[in-house]
Amino acid sequence: MNSFLKNGKGILLAYDQGFEHGPSADFNDQNIDPNYVIDIARKGDFTGLVLHKGIAEKYYDGKVPLIVKLNGKTNLPKSEPVSTQVCSVEEAVSLGAKGVGYTVYLGSAHESLMLQEFGEIQEEAHEVGIPAIAWIYPRGEAVKNDTSPEIVSYAARAGLEIGADAVKIKYSGTPETFSWAVKAAGVIKVFMSGGPKAPTDETFLGQVKGAMDAGAAGLAVGRNVWQHQDPAKMAAALKEIIFNGRDVGKALEMSVAQ
Amino acid sequence: MNSFLKNGKGILLAYDQGFEHGPSADFNDQNIDPNYVIDIARKGDFTGLVLHKGIAEKYYDGKVPLIVKLNGKTNLPKSEPVSTQVCSVEEAVSLGAKGVGYTVYLGSAHESLMLQEFGEIQEEAHEVGIPAIAWIYPRGEAVKNDTSPEIVSYAARAGLEIGADAVKIKYSGTPETFSWAVKAAGVIKVFMSGGPKAPTDETFLGQVKGAMDAGAAGLAVGRNVWQHQDPAKMAAALKEIIFNGRDVGKALEMSVAQ
Amino acid sequence: MNSFLKNGKGILLAYDQGFEHGPSADFNDQNIDPNYVIDIARKGDFTGLVLHKGIAEKYYDGKVPLIVKLNGKTNLPKSEPVSTQVCSVEEAVSLGAKGVGYTVYLGSAHESLMLQEFGEIQEEAHEVGIPAIAWIYPRGEAVKNDTSPEIVSYAARAGLEIGADAVKIKYSGTPETFSWAVKAAGVIKVFMSGGPKAPTDETFLGQVKGAMDAGAAGLAVGRNVWQHQDPAKMAAALKEIIFNGRDVGKALEMSVAQ
Amino acid sequence: MNSFLKNGKGILLAYDQGFEHGPSADFNDQNIDPNYVIDIARKGDFTGLVLHKGIAEKYYDGKVPLIVKLNGKTNLPKSEPVSTQVCSVEEAVSLGAKGVGYTVYLGSAHESLMLQEFGEIQEEAHEVGIPAIAWIYPRGEAVKNDTSPEIVSYAARAGLEIGADAVKIKYSGTPETFSWAVKAAGVIKVFMSGGPKAPTDETFLGQVKGAMDAGAAGLAVGRNVWQHQDPAKMAAALKEIIFNGRDVGKALEMSVAQ
Amino acid sequence: MNSFLKNGKGILLAYDQGFEHGPSADFNDQNIDPNYVIDIARKGDFTGLVLHKGIAEKYYDGKVPLIVKLNGKTNLPKSEPVSTQVCSVEEAVSLGAKGVGYTVYLGSAHESLMLQEFGEIQEEAHEVGIPAIAWIYPRGEAVKNDTSPEIVSYAARAGLEIGADAVKIKYSGTPETFSWAVKAAGVIKVFMSGGPKAPTDETFLGQVKGAMDAGAAGLAVGRNVWQHQDPAKMAAALKEIIFNGRDVGKALEMSVAQ
Repeated sequence: MNSFLKNGKGILLAYDQGFEHGPSADFNDQNIDPNYVIDIARKGDFTGLVLHKGIAEKYYDGKVPLIVKLNGKTNLPKSEPVSTQVCSVEEAVSLGAKGVGYTVYLGSAHESLMLQEFGEIQEEAHEVGIPAIAWIYPRGEAVKNDTSPEIVSYAARAGLEIGADAVKIKYSGTPETFSWAVKAAGVIKVFMSGGPKAPTDETFLGQVKGAMDAGAAGLAVGRNVWQHQDPAKMAAALKEIIFNGRDVGKALEMSVAQ
Repeated sequence: MNSFLKNGKGILLAYDQGFEHGPSADFNDQNIDPNYVIDIARKGDFTGLVLHKGIAEKYYDGKVPLIVKLNGKTNLPKSEPVSTQVCSVEEAVSLGAKGVGYTVYLGSAHESLMLQEFGEIQEEAHEVGIPAIAWIYPRGEAVKNDTSPEIVSYAARAGLEIGADAVKIKYSGTPETFSWAVKAAGVIKVFMSGGPKAPTDETFLGQVKGAMDAGAAGLAVGRNVWQHQDPAKMAAALKEIIFNGRDVGKALEMSVAQ
Repeated sequence: MNSFLKNGKGILLAYDQGFEHGPSADFNDQNIDPNYVIDIARKGDFTGLVLHKGIAEKYYDGKVPLIVKLNGKTNLPKSEPVSTQVCSVEEAVSLGAKGVGYTVYLGSAHESLMLQEFGEIQEEAHEVGIPAIAWIYPRGEAVKNDTSPEIVSYAARAGLEIGADAVKIKYSGTPETFSWAVKAAGVIKVFMSGGPKAPTDETFLGQVKGAMDAGAAGLAVGRNVWQHQDPAKMAAALKEIIFNGRDVGKALEMSVAQ
Repeated sequence: MNSFLKNGKGILLAYDQGFEHGPSADFNDQNIDPNYVIDIARKGDFTGLVLHKGIAEKYYDGKVPLIVKLNGKTNLPKSEPVSTQVCSVEEAVSLGAKGVGYTVYLGSAHESLMLQEFGEIQEEAHEVGIPAIAWIYPRGEAVKNDTSPEIVSYAARAGLEIGADAVKIKYSGTPETFSWAVKAAGVIKVFMSGGPKAPTDETFLGQVKGAMDAGAAGLAVGRNVWQHQDPAKMAAALKEIIFNGRDVGKALEMSVAQ
Repeated sequence: MNSFLKNGKGILLAYDQGFEHGPSADFNDQNIDPNYVIDIARKGDFTGLVLHKGIAEKYYDGKVPLIVKLNGKTNLPKSEPVSTQVCSVEEAVSLGAKGVGYTVYLGSAHESLMLQEFGEIQEEAHEVGIPAIAWIYPRGEAVKNDTSPEIVSYAARAGLEIGADAVKIKYSGTPETFSWAVKAAGVIKVFMSGGPKAPTDETFLGQVKGAMDAGAAGLAVGRNVWQHQDPAKMAAALKEIIFNGRDVGKALEMSVAQ
C-alpha cells in the first residue's frame, strides 16, 4: 500500500459515482468532466485516484497513483446487490494502476460470488505485486443498519481475513466505535468512506477527524471534495487533519489561509 | 472509432432486428433480404454496418465497415432481459469486423452478467485493436421510463465508465437533456439510437438534428431507413444533418434534389 | 451443407426420439432397434442421419452422412425447456459426423443459455469445416402457438442470424406462410421438421409438398418414416416430392410402383 | 465393459450408501467398515466394486475391479435432486479405477446439469479407455413412479443415447416390462439396481431372476448383500442366477450347499 | 495428516471467527489481535493453527503448522448457507500451509456446489502432497438438529467418502454416539469441533474427554481457548486429556500445577 501512502497516511479521491449512482444524482456541469476531478486530485496532492477502467483508459494522465475499481454496478436493479468484475487485474495494470479495488456487498444474497471473485483478484494482484483494496459495504435485506459499530467492524475484519491490503468502510459514528473497527482490521490500512456530501464542512471534517483519531490510515473521498464549491480548500483541510493531525477548527483555518 | 467516422461524425446502419424483434414485426418482402439492406448501406455511404454473425458470414461484402453485434436475444421471453454472447471477438474479426457491438440492459436483474461479459469483450477487442461499442438500454422492471433524461444520461455515463469506445443510446426528447447525456459520455462517441419507424420523416429528422445539436457523433439507424419507401432519400437527408449540420427543412429539400 | 444435399435438396432421418420423448411413446419392437432405423436410412438413400452420440458410437456404420445432435433433454421436467450440450464438436467428428445439430428453445426462460452454447458450437464446427444445424423450436410459457406463421418465421430468421448453416423448423400450415419463413432464413437451408406421425400419408406428404413449394431445402423426418408400416414406400414418396418435385398423388403412386 | 464381465455377465458390489443415505440408515457395526465390504466383494468373486473416491483412496486393495462413482449427494436437501461431480476421471484412474460411474436424476429440474456433466465425463473416460457407467434414476417432482415400465425403459434408453457403456436402473416389476427396458438400452449392458434390503431372500432373488430372464447383464447390489446375515450365501445364490441361469429355488439350494 | 499430529493425536487452534461470526460476537481487546492468538498456539504447543489467507499472509510466523481455510462466509445472509472458495490451494501453500481446510454445509440447498468445490480442492491438495481437511457442518432448512447422533455420524461418513484426510465435526453429546461417528469416519482422523465458549471448563473438557474416549484424533478449538481468561491453563488441560488420556479432574489439576 506504500504507493498510496505518505508517512503511513493517505487520501484517495474516488470518482466512480457516475457508474454507481448515475450522473444526474451527483454531478454538475463541472464535475461531470473527469478532467476536472483528475485535476483536483493532482493539485490537491491526493495520494491515490480511484477510477473505473473506462475513465482510466481515456483520461488518466499518470500524475496521481491510480487504483482501478475492478467491479461495478448501477443503482437501478432492486434485487440483492451484486457487483461483478468488469476489468481484469492485467488490464488495470496496463492502464497504469498501482492498485486495484473491488466492492464486496457483505450480507447480500450474492455475497459468496463477490467473496470468491475478490479471492481470485487478490491472488492475481499479489502475483503482479500490487495491493488489493476491498470496499466492504454490508448491504441487502439482511443488513438493517450499515453504519452500526457491529457491522462496520465486521466489514473491517472481513477485509483483513480475505486478504485485502486495505479496506474502505463507512464511519460508525464515533471515534470509540470506529477504533474497534480499526482494531478488527489489524495491520491492514483502514480508509474511511466519504459518502454523500455532508450538510456542512464541519460535519464531514469532524467525521474524518474521528476516524483518524480512531487509527484510520486515511480517507477515500469523492463527493465531499469534488461537489464542494472550493475543492482545493476542502482538500487542504482534509490534509491538515489526515497528515498533520490538526483538529477541525485549525484545519479549516489553515485551509483558508492557503 | 475512426474506422466508423468521417470528420468525427458517423451514421451506422443497423440490421439485427430480425433476431431481436422477429421478421414479422419489422420486415417486408424487400427488406427481409439482407442484400437489400447491405445495398442501402453501400449506396448511402453509411460509415458502418451492424450485423449479427450469421448475416455477416453469409452476406457481408466488405464494402461498408462492419460492426458485428456479439450478443442477442429474441423478444419472446417475458422475464428480466438478458442477452448473452453468441459470437467471439476473434470470430467477428475473422468475418471482417472493424468493431464489435454488445448490448447491456442496464437495470435488468441480469445487469451484472452483461456488464461482466462486456468487460471481457472490451479487453479482447482492444487487444486486437478494434473498438467496443456498447448499446446501453436501461430496461427491466426497475426501469420505468427508458427515455427520461436521467436514465439516458446514466446509460451514456455507464458506457464511458465500463470502457466503451462509443455508446448507442435512445434520444431523451430534447437537445437540452441530450446534451447532458453527451457530456456524461465524455470523450467517447455518442450515437443516437434510431428506434422504430417514426410517423413522419420530419419527426425523425428532428430528433436526429436535436441529438447532433446536443453533441452526438451521429446515428445508429435501422428501421427509419430500410423501412422507408425511399431509403436513399432518407439517407441523404440524414447525412445532410449529421455531416453538414443542415436543419431539417434544408436537409429534406436537399435530399429530394439528389 | 453440401454433405447432406443432392442438387441442393435433402432428406434427413432423425432418430433422437428415444432420448427426447422416451421409448414408450414412439417405439415398437422393430424401431426401438437402432439398426432397423439406420437400415431404413441406408436403403432409402437418405442424405443425412441424425443421432445422439451414444447411438452414433455404438451403431453408426458410416453409410449415410452423419449429424450428431450435441444437446438433448428428456420430456420429464415440467420447468421452462432447457437442453444443454452433452457431446463436444470434437467428439462428434471423431464419431464420423459430417455436421452437428443443436436445439434452441427460443422463447424459453433459458433461451440465452442455449443461444450462447450454440454460438460456441457454431464457431467450433466452422473451425473444423462442418456445418452447424439449428433445431429452432420456440417453446415455453411465453410461446402460445409454436406453428403460427410469425413464430415459425422468427425461428427461421433466428437461425440465419446466429450463424446456423441450416435450420429445422416446424411447418406453419400453408405454403404461403412457410415461404415467408424460408425468405426469413435467407441463404441458409430450411428443413421442415417432420413431427409426430400424421394420421394419413396424404396429410404428411401434403405438408412436405407445401414446404417444398415454399422453398424449403428438404425434410428432417423421424416418426413419419420409421413408425410407418412401410418405411421404404414412405421414403420413396418423400423423395419424389423433395428431389423430383412431384405432387402428392403422383409421389404416392410412384412409391407404390417401386 | 469387459473389465467388469465374465461371459458377458456381471455382479457389481456397490458401497456408496454411507454418503448417499448416511451411515445410520443402512449400516451396522460390521458393514460400516469398508474392509468388511471389500472383503465380501473379493471372497464373493464380484466382477466389480463401486466406491466413492475417499474409500477407494483409503481402502481399495486392487483385488476386485474398481468403479469410482464420480458424483454424489446426501439425502438431506429436500429440493429437486442434483448430484455434481466430486472426483475427476483422471483422479479415479489414479486410484485404480477400471471404470467410472455417474448418477443422472432424469426428470429433475437439474437434469440438464447432470446430463452435461455426464457428457464430459463420458468423453474423458473414453479418451483414457475406460467405460462410463450411468446410474439413471428418474426422480423429482415430475416423476410420480420411478419403477413404472415407461420410466424404467426411458432411463435405459437415455443411457444408451448419452453414450453410457452400461446403465444401472431399477427393476420394473416383471420380466416382460423389464425386457422392454433392456431392448431400449440396445447393445449397452443393463444392470439391475439392487435397492434397499428386500423382506426375504426369495423376493430379491426373484427380481434378479426376472431381470436376467429379461436380458439384463447383471446386478449392481449393495444392501441386499452386505446387510445380509450371510453375505457369502447371498452372493453364491446371486451368482448361480446371474452366471449359471439357475432359478431361485435351485440357486438358494446350491448356495446353502457351498 | 502427520504434519498436524503427535502420536496420532492433535489439537488445532482455529481463528477464523472474525470472518465467520464477526469481531463483535466473539472478540475482546486482546483476542481481536491475531498475534495474541498465534502466540497462544505457539506457547501451548498446538499441533495446528487454522487461519484464513489474509491473517496467514499478514501474521503467520511459521512456528505452528498452518492450515489455511480455503472458503468462508459471513453470518449475515439469511438464505441457505453457502461458502465458496476464497483462496486457492497454490496460494495456501505459498503462505506456508501444510494443510487446507474447507467447510461443507451438508444438507444446504447449495450442498452440491460445496461438494464439487471440495472435490477439486482435495485433488489439488493431494497433488501437492498436503491433506485436505473437511469441516462438515450439516445446516440449512432441511437440518433440524445438527448435533443428533444420526447427523453427526453422517457428517463424519461424508468426510470419508469425499476423500477428506480429516474431518471436523460437532460433538454428538455422548461418547457412545460419538464413537459411532468415529467408526463412520473409518481411517480418517476425526476432530471434535470446539464450538462456542462453554459455561464452565468442566463442561467443555468433559465433551473433549468424551470425544477422545470415543476414538477422536483430537480437537479443533477456538473460542474455548482464546476467549478463556487463562488460555495456557485451558490448553494444558486439553493436552492432558488429548495426548495423555487423563480424565477431566486430573487434567484440570495438572493444568493448574503447570
